[in-house]
Amino acid sequence: MKITRLDQCASMPIDMEGVAGATKQVPIGQRDGAPHFSIRVFTLEPGGHTPHHSHESEHLNYILEGEGEVLDGNKPRMVKKGDYLLVMPGELHQYRNTGEQPLVFMCMVPSAYE
Amino acid sequence: MKITRLDQCASMPIDMEGVAGATKQVPIGQRDGAPHFSIRVFTLEPGGHTPHHSHESEHLNYILEGEGEVLDGNKPRMVKKGDYLLVMPGELHQYRNTGEQPLVFMCMVPSAYE
Repeated sequence: MKITRLDQCASMPIDMEGVAGATKQVPIGQRDGAPHFSIRVFTLEPGGHTPHHSHESEHLNYILEGEGEVLDGNKPRMVKKGDYLLVMPGELHQYRNTGEQPLVFMCMVPSAYE
Repeated sequence: MKITRLDQCASMPIDMEGVAGATKQVPIGQRDGAPHFSIRVFTLEPGGHTPHHSHESEHLNYILEGEGEVLDGNKPRMVKKGDYLLVMPGELHQYRNTGEQPLVFMCMVPSAYE
């Protein structure tokens, strides 16, 4: 049984087209032997964003801190601490930190990805 | 894209052998079309606990509120808000609320379960 916290997890800047002001941590992943799915945590600085993209797998998200918006296709929807999201396979989406504090969210994906 | 919050999710008492003082919410589950895995949220009242059991699937957990202990096999380990846990398939475990406030935690499982 692995027990960890974010302050024990390395933080990696994300260098990827369409991404700005973002870092990633992986509290539970492939390396831990997670059989089916993993937990990543993304931190977006104010003004930061993830890519406006879609992919074959779903995302399950939980907003840990802050507020911002998610593009649902091309439509912005407000999100804030305490929100749960299901982004379906093939659904175009983007997280944007439109607030003044870091936007921190969990992103669960199949362990093939992380 | 589904966006929800706990105050929008029905809370169901858990009537199951080995369980006390526990309720469940399902912010993201089978019913939402989640293809691979689901998010349940359990709330344990002070003194409440989940069963001391194991099962074929893993659990991925995140402690949202409170503190308590998790039996790792038969060994108690302290957990509190902000902890991430990976309970492996077949690993004997139990959550116990040893604190004075509700212990609230996310529990991600394959969507076959929820």
